[in-house]
Amino acid sequence: MADYRTFTTEDAKRFADEHSTLFGDHSKLHCEEFGDGNLNLVFRVSNDKGTSLIVKQALPYARCVGESWPLTIDRARIEAEVLIKHRKLCPEHTVEVLYHDPVQAAILMEDLDDYRILRAELIAGKQFPHLATQLAAYLAHTLYYTSDFALTGPNKKQQVGRFLNPELCLITEDLFFTDPYCNHERNNVHAEIRSDAQQLWHDEALQADVAQLKVNFLSKPQALLHGDVHSGSIFINDENCKLIDAEFGFYGPIGFDVGSLLGNLLLNYLGHFGLTADADIRQQHQAYLLEQIQTLWQAFATNFQQLMSNECREPSLQNSLYQQRFMQQVFADTLGYAGCELIRRTVGLAHVADLEQISDSATRGQSERKALKLGRELILQRASLANIEQVIALVRYQ
Amino acid sequence: MADYRTFTTEDAKRFADEHSTLFGDHSKLHCEEFGDGNLNLVFRVSNDKGTSLIVKQALPYARCVGESWPLTIDRARIEAEVLIKHRKLCPEHTVEVLYHDPVQAAILMEDLDDYRILRAELIAGKQFPHLATQLAAYLAHTLYYTSDFALTGPNKKQQVGRFLNPELCLITEDLFFTDPYCNHERNNVHAEIRSDAQQLWHDEALQADVAQLKVNFLSKPQALLHGDVHSGSIFINDENCKLIDAEFGFYGPIGFDVGSLLGNLLLNYLGHFGLTADADIRQQHQAYLLEQIQTLWQAFATNFQQLMSNECREPSLQNSLYQQRFMQQVFADTLGYAGCELIRRTVGLAHVADLEQISDSATRGQSERKALKLGRELILQRASLANIEQVIALVRYQ
Repeated sequence: MADYRTFTTEDAKRFADEHSTLFGDHSKLHCEEFGDGNLNLVFRVSNDKGTSLIVKQALPYARCVGESWPLTIDRARIEAEVLIKHRKLCPEHTVEVLYHDPVQAAILMEDLDDYRILRAELIAGKQFPHLATQLAAYLAHTLYYTSDFALTGPNKKQQVGRFLNPELCLITEDLFFTDPYCNHERNNVHAEIRSDAQQLWHDEALQADVAQLKVNFLSKPQALLHGDVHSGSIFINDENCKLIDAEFGFYGPIGFDVGSLLGNLLLNYLGHFGLTADADIRQQHQAYLLEQIQTLWQAFATNFQQLMSNECREPSLQNSLYQQRFMQQVFADTLGYAGCELIRRTVGLAHVADLEQISDSATRGQSERKALKLGRELILQRASLANIEQVIALVRYQ
Repeated sequence: MADYRTFTTEDAKRFADEHSTLFGDHSKLHCEEFGDGNLNLVFRVSNDKGTSLIVKQALPYARCVGESWPLTIDRARIEAEVLIKHRKLCPEHTVEVLYHDPVQAAILMEDLDDYRILRAELIAGKQFPHLATQLAAYLAHTLYYTSDFALTGPNKKQQVGRFLNPELCLITEDLFFTDPYCNHERNNVHAEIRSDAQQLWHDEALQADVAQLKVNFLSKPQALLHGDVHSGSIFINDENCKLIDAEFGFYGPIGFDVGSLLGNLLLNYLGHFGLTADADIRQQHQAYLLEQIQTLWQAFATNFQQLMSNECREPSLQNSLYQQRFMQQVFADTLGYAGCELIRRTVGLAHVADLEQISDSATRGQSERKALKLGRELILQRASLANIEQVIALVRYQ
């Protein structure tokens, strides 16, 4: 930390200029900071020929839990290393990191200025036919090739050690698995659904299942996760999508990444009950979302199964019966974590615009109530739901 | 490694003398080396007043897989640190480490010269009424206090990182979970049971379950295991027993430690069909073993449940339904790993004297066949066997 200093726009310009050959004429660089400033500084450095790059610097503190508290800048190393590794495994759908400075906790990366944030697009009702297939490919490739199917025991242990990421995992442990199930001061509960939240806090059957999902998050290092696959971490345009923001990356359960994404698509589905007044338009968008959810799981499972069948070099894991059971267990985890995402985004600290942007309070309450109910069902039924079609039927029933 | 040198008896004397105050008069020390010399040097250093200590030094290679191959001397650090941690958690039943030198990979520890190795005692038909209750206490305390019930996420991750132990885990991955289920050159198959071994190599249902147990071994860091709890790692006398040899220690599934021990008691049970000709004596010893097996699980489960109920400070894991399910899952793992131990000690590289000392080849074959059959049943039925009584009934049926 000794030599760390918070970047000015001048520092960011110099950093981008030093570590890339894209710019050429140094004198004509322009730089603006456009991050929210709570966790990171984010600069866009551009020249007058339309070339631009992003400089992201981790701040040594975070204000997002209500008060200033220190947060390791080692998360920039984690972010850079996860993105570099994931890009090697899935170059199409991972943002490119050009340079990483661990002392300044700064990353130089490609500017996705012809992409937009998925969450805002989905809230606006935009549809991308390639969304599910591309994200399924990203998840299957990054998760398969960092798992026990692809790495020897010693290689994987070395990776586990590099990506323990204790501080950022603790944030998830608390915000995702603990707070929403008790009357915690960090929670953010809309008055409209106060009594529904209180039911959660006394639901011991649900809490037992969430405890299991939390312990899996703590102690099931199946693969190197992105760790924060929500629709704000995905940039998209009409041709392609790319993942950014991997600072929560660690070795955890595969279903956590897949389920976080699935949960975010469901949050958008439920949000549109309040966001889109026109029934035809709403139904058409919701049908699109369900189709994407179905494709997401099917394409992920197909990709992952093919990789297990064709690429696994570890004799004892080539057993096809074991591989079938493995996929079934990933499916159950996926549904469980999707359910947790629905619940924590509704009553926990960090909400999503898909629900928050519903202007009428009662209408918003209805969507929130559906999110809690569906989340609960997904968690409790995760091992008995046999396939994604049954999940879709459960969603339609809400 | 630069300053590492293999100890002579003079080095061992000096090491013991420097790092303890037990001896007093330096001139009258005596030292003998009595290890098997394959993996470690083991010296007893004693004075003329009857005080003695053990010096154990890890050698930078191992010959136990048929040829000389390098093996990290970091295992001495692992051994010392696991024993020191376990002794803090269960001083009664863990050997005391007095000093550890990471450069020389040498450990100074108490001499258990008034104890004997459990395996030899059980083969001789000796009975220890306290065996199961003491080992259950050791397992419950060391495993509970290093688990997610007792440690915060960040604390546990730090421990996981210190005890990755990739090289020694790989030995177990291969010898315990891979070799016995294929026609591997490292296997050691008694001609008498060749066709039974071949059946294993084509048993895909069994292999699917063993793959699951192997993946749990790789990717289920529940607690800091001893990692090698067989009856050769336990010293015992009429009052007490103590664990030694923790170089295989790592964060793994709790059931692995419990199951390894249970498997070794079962190997002794099956061995006595061939070791003890007198039916009355045999039945009496076997009844003792079954009683100890029953007590071992019951006392372990009771201890662990009490610790979960009384000591758990992590709110989301205080849920009693979750805790019940947790114990049931540890039980299933325990039976699965006990089954693996029976099989790998029968057809794998490292056999046990409990079977090897049966002099008649056909009789030995009978006990070995029982071991394979019981091992298979324990693995396949591990999730459907509801309690230890059902396990005992299954054993009696062999």
